[in-house]
Amino acid sequence: MTDTVSAAMLVIGDEILSGRTKDRNIGHLADIMTAIGIDLKEVRIVADDEGDIADAVNALRGHYTYLFTTGGIGPTHDDITADSVAKAFGVPCEHDAAALALLGAHYARREMEFTEARRRMARMPRGAVHIDNPISVAPGFRIGNVHVMAGVPAIFQAMLDNVLPTLKTGQKLLSATVHCPFGEGVIGGPLGGIQKAHPNTIIGSYPKYRDGSFWTELVVRSRSAEALEAARAAVEAMVQSLTPAA
Amino acid sequence: MTDTVSAAMLVIGDEILSGRTKDRNIGHLADIMTAIGIDLKEVRIVADDEGDIADAVNALRGHYTYLFTTGGIGPTHDDITADSVAKAFGVPCEHDAAALALLGAHYARREMEFTEARRRMARMPRGAVHIDNPISVAPGFRIGNVHVMAGVPAIFQAMLDNVLPTLKTGQKLLSATVHCPFGEGVIGGPLGGIQKAHPNTIIGSYPKYRDGSFWTELVVRSRSAEALEAARAAVEAMVQSLTPAA
Repeated sequence: MTDTVSAAMLVIGDEILSGRTKDRNIGHLADIMTAIGIDLKEVRIVADDEGDIADAVNALRGHYTYLFTTGGIGPTHDDITADSVAKAFGVPCEHDAAALALLGAHYARREMEFTEARRRMARMPRGAVHIDNPISVAPGFRIGNVHVMAGVPAIFQAMLDNVLPTLKTGQKLLSATVHCPFGEGVIGGPLGGIQKAHPNTIIGSYPKYRDGSFWTELVVRSRSAEALEAARAAVEAMVQSLTPAA
Repeated sequence: MTDTVSAAMLVIGDEILSGRTKDRNIGHLADIMTAIGIDLKEVRIVADDEGDIADAVNALRGHYTYLFTTGGIGPTHDDITADSVAKAFGVPCEHDAAALALLGAHYARREMEFTEARRRMARMPRGAVHIDNPISVAPGFRIGNVHVMAGVPAIFQAMLDNVLPTLKTGQKLLSATVHCPFGEGVIGGPLGGIQKAHPNTIIGSYPKYRDGSFWTELVVRSRSAEALEAARAAVEAMVQSLTPAA
């Protein structure tokens, strides 16, 4: 599988860790990465702390093809993502001329003052390139393999849509789901045997619990359609063999 | 703030990273930790990979007062959390006699076979102590400062309820919210000044976007009720000063 493209995500913000805000971006990024054939391998959530953010950026950007961050790029004192990413790359964080022009024109059109706080949103690490923000103008940015985006879900999603066409994508991981009316204790043994017999697949077992009883969703994944179908058929046959005849 | 108690969370499972399952445990743990005065400082989500899990366990357990994990403790081949945590601690992972007895009795009562897969759920690192599971019997476990719990939300929540009375808790972080009808660009400057003037508080600004316009939730947090009220009053006065008279 030499054409695997990997990604990590860094969610930045005290409000997620305190529970005040429930993250909605992880699930969205996970869905999109799966859809385009990039393996999301790790997610971290860290507080609004420059050292913590920079350490996480450096740990993740070196390890995966892409890193996507959300949060901390607004105009207030607790928005320190641009500074932290600059620190991680060892470059200065400075007002970007193009971003200043973009934001200046935006506020002039709306007859709003271009405050110092708003000017903060034009700061980015030297060498960064913009990620367009069709909703509220203030751009995200990319530096190296790190894509820095907003935390507000509507803006994050719009920025991510602009990033997607620039990404190298891998061969898509195909998947097939087999519904299993039994709990994992029933199928765990035979399922392990099927996994061993089908090494080019990843077989996942997801326990579900409802109204006092367990059932299981069995998901087979593979980059090969043939391997996928062979393993799926084996899983289905196993489930059938355990089902009492009607 | 010498009485700060910190925590990290490790969410284990391919299904979260692929987007198939949307995590519901992070928000729950965050809410509970905030309620009892423990600072949740970091969350990581990793795949079902023994090395990745062990590395994350070791990185996090050394850094924070407590580590809580969810996922990967069921009976199937992809449930490798117990092995990975044992590896992190450098101890063997073995069938625990008490857990075997508990599970054996449970399946005997229900006249169900105690399969090899089900016996897997009794495996834990040597020296671990049980975390009771009132829903489906198979225990979670604690070793050192690491609490290993189920990923199914109902079971995770029940296990966590059993863990809470055993935790050392910190002085609760108090909070007060001020609604602000303006976007961050308007209040960013003065808010930064208030933060500087109230160093014993953490002032967060959370942008909200709805129907084409921005508003902001301003949240002041502090372990001191007096410091909290002083900063809250300053934030409210600032918002009032920007609001046009009726």
